[in-house]
Amino acid sequence: MEYKISDKLAALKPSAIREIFKSLSDPTIISFAAGNPSPLSFPVADLADLSADIFANSSTAALQYSVTEGYPPFREAIRARMKEKFGIGRDFDETIVTTGGNQAIELCCKVMCNEGDVVVCENPSFIGALNAFRSNGAKTVGVPLTSEGIDPEKLEETLANTPNVKMLYLIPTFQNPAGVTSTLENRKAVYEIAKKYGVLIFEDNPYGELRFAGEDVPTYKSFDEDGIVMYCSSFSKILSAGMRIGYACGPQPVIQKMVVAKQVEDVHTNIFFQMLCYRYMTERDLDAHIEAIRGIYRDKAGRMLARLDEFMPKCVSYTRPEGGLFLWCTLPGGVSSADYVKEALARKVAVVPGTAFNCDPAAPSDSFRLNYSTPSDEDIDRGVKILGDLAREMFGD
Amino acid sequence: MEYKISDKLAALKPSAIREIFKSLSDPTIISFAAGNPSPLSFPVADLADLSADIFANSSTAALQYSVTEGYPPFREAIRARMKEKFGIGRDFDETIVTTGGNQAIELCCKVMCNEGDVVVCENPSFIGALNAFRSNGAKTVGVPLTSEGIDPEKLEETLANTPNVKMLYLIPTFQNPAGVTSTLENRKAVYEIAKKYGVLIFEDNPYGELRFAGEDVPTYKSFDEDGIVMYCSSFSKILSAGMRIGYACGPQPVIQKMVVAKQVEDVHTNIFFQMLCYRYMTERDLDAHIEAIRGIYRDKAGRMLARLDEFMPKCVSYTRPEGGLFLWCTLPGGVSSADYVKEALARKVAVVPGTAFNCDPAAPSDSFRLNYSTPSDEDIDRGVKILGDLAREMFGD
Repeated sequence: MEYKISDKLAALKPSAIREIFKSLSDPTIISFAAGNPSPLSFPVADLADLSADIFANSSTAALQYSVTEGYPPFREAIRARMKEKFGIGRDFDETIVTTGGNQAIELCCKVMCNEGDVVVCENPSFIGALNAFRSNGAKTVGVPLTSEGIDPEKLEETLANTPNVKMLYLIPTFQNPAGVTSTLENRKAVYEIAKKYGVLIFEDNPYGELRFAGEDVPTYKSFDEDGIVMYCSSFSKILSAGMRIGYACGPQPVIQKMVVAKQVEDVHTNIFFQMLCYRYMTERDLDAHIEAIRGIYRDKAGRMLARLDEFMPKCVSYTRPEGGLFLWCTLPGGVSSADYVKEALARKVAVVPGTAFNCDPAAPSDSFRLNYSTPSDEDIDRGVKILGDLAREMFGD
Repeated sequence: MEYKISDKLAALKPSAIREIFKSLSDPTIISFAAGNPSPLSFPVADLADLSADIFANSSTAALQYSVTEGYPPFREAIRARMKEKFGIGRDFDETIVTTGGNQAIELCCKVMCNEGDVVVCENPSFIGALNAFRSNGAKTVGVPLTSEGIDPEKLEETLANTPNVKMLYLIPTFQNPAGVTSTLENRKAVYEIAKKYGVLIFEDNPYGELRFAGEDVPTYKSFDEDGIVMYCSSFSKILSAGMRIGYACGPQPVIQKMVVAKQVEDVHTNIFFQMLCYRYMTERDLDAHIEAIRGIYRDKAGRMLARLDEFMPKCVSYTRPEGGLFLWCTLPGGVSSADYVKEALARKVAVVPGTAFNCDPAAPSDSFRLNYSTPSDEDIDRGVKILGDLAREMFGD
């Protein structure tokens, strides 16, 4: 039988990152490629205690079918926390629990876009989102990301000249992969442009709580008086990535359609872990736990930056993140990073080439992404030295 | 802002069953509406013990990101069990773990169908599948279900006259909602027709292991030498529905694209519960547990049938299931079941009207679905008497 794959999936390749992740079964490879939270960030003992109690006292509810929107007390706890800590949520907004943040991205695109419609994204952007848009037959159009955030002039030019733009996908804080946090001024300007063109802003904020230096910048959603922002975050980086619990808060008509779309994807998110998250949020000190994770990442990022300062030739530039999981390195003179990344892997250090994050997959990139949250301190020391030596060999000082 | 919802979602209504499920917060209502497994079927003590051990000894792997295809030892255990017990799987097949069986249905449609393509279904059929197809912009076309299975002549007529049919969706065993198990002769005939027209058969088998009377009929997948069958099942009805663990086995090129599509929906299924299922499968006696569940459902179905025989007027007919969770009742003289279902709810008994399962949502139905797995024995006795009295009032003997 000839399998006639749908147009949208026929064109879609597996994520380079997931593929690299699979190839990392070789234990001699030092990986700066993953986006994994540090295992040190999982509050194992607390989760074990609370799980035992759920099995003992709430097992029927925790193992039975539940409602698609999410476990009601959990939704309410998320809503209240977003409101209290970040000023997120108005009367016109609603909250949905999703199977990781990625599902919220995918559902929102499914709800907003017909095949051929356009999602405008920062370039570079998160590959999991780009492929979620493509898997629904939407086209991704990139607008350059500057050190202030997405370029407002080029954004307006793009919106003015591109038909059927339905969403503007942004990671404004500790952007993945580039590590940029956009300024408040930039956010206000971009908000007005999106409003003018009637385009929904999808604000993806999985790393926002992982700030270990500098000052918070208000989220788009915190000043969304017009109901044009869908906000999304998750527990992947602050409790456990493997449990797949995310959430979104946005205008009711869109959320309600996302509920309908979610119902036929997975009926609801694992209810046991929704209850477990809820119990952790309400019976343990989540804020103190997040503060401890920030300390871990402050140390990890500081260590990687110290080694980069020590070993990298000056011709290679890199961001100095104030939070999140990633550093973004750029090679000199606009040279493609492809050969460098390939040779680094041959020397047993895995990094992700910038091309993996391009809105146009055929476009070149002079950059690559480093993750500091997953590797051990020893691997950071050894791995960055290998990367530095290689850069010096290839590009001089 | 005007929210321009995509065409596919704009037309899609929330599932009537999920909506009824939400309305059941009134504890005085007797519900025969849900499709929930009996809470008695959850092996709570074993799951609690194994969970404690996972937290104690495998917490990092159980809480960290994992691979999209599913936890490798779990996939292998599923593959081996399908092969051994049901003769499922050839060299050209692969297995994927999904977030409940519904995700496998949705992913397969996304992989096979462009917007406007057609999925042919038994009429009536499972609403969660019909809406999954619609949520991807596919059209559903129904072919009548007889007591032998989907009508082969009408199926061939439909395939010969309908352009762009990409999938044939079937629940051959203990069909939801109609309770029909198609005969082997019917399956062989339908298989040949699908093969002739180059249409992938999606065999949804969530209830297959819940047979409490009669003899097993071989699955389509067990005689699929041509790679035209995608087989799907789940642990929802044999371990826990709330954990959302399903799986599919089918031709490699299709499964591999389903992995790509799943990657951008939820990255992977909750890994803790994949490990928990795996541990249960390999360290406890799953077959003995399933045998115990069959006993529960044999008793529940027997009780509901006894009460129906006692209280229902003879003019109302109903199926006598040999497994699964549902009975299908048909009112006399082709009368629409809408008024009856509405009046039953007013008398505090919830059932699902047959219209909820129609491929054409505007078509009428003279039937309704009863679930016997969820209600208590007392509720079965009281509820069926109310339904019987109402039928006698409305339709006489």
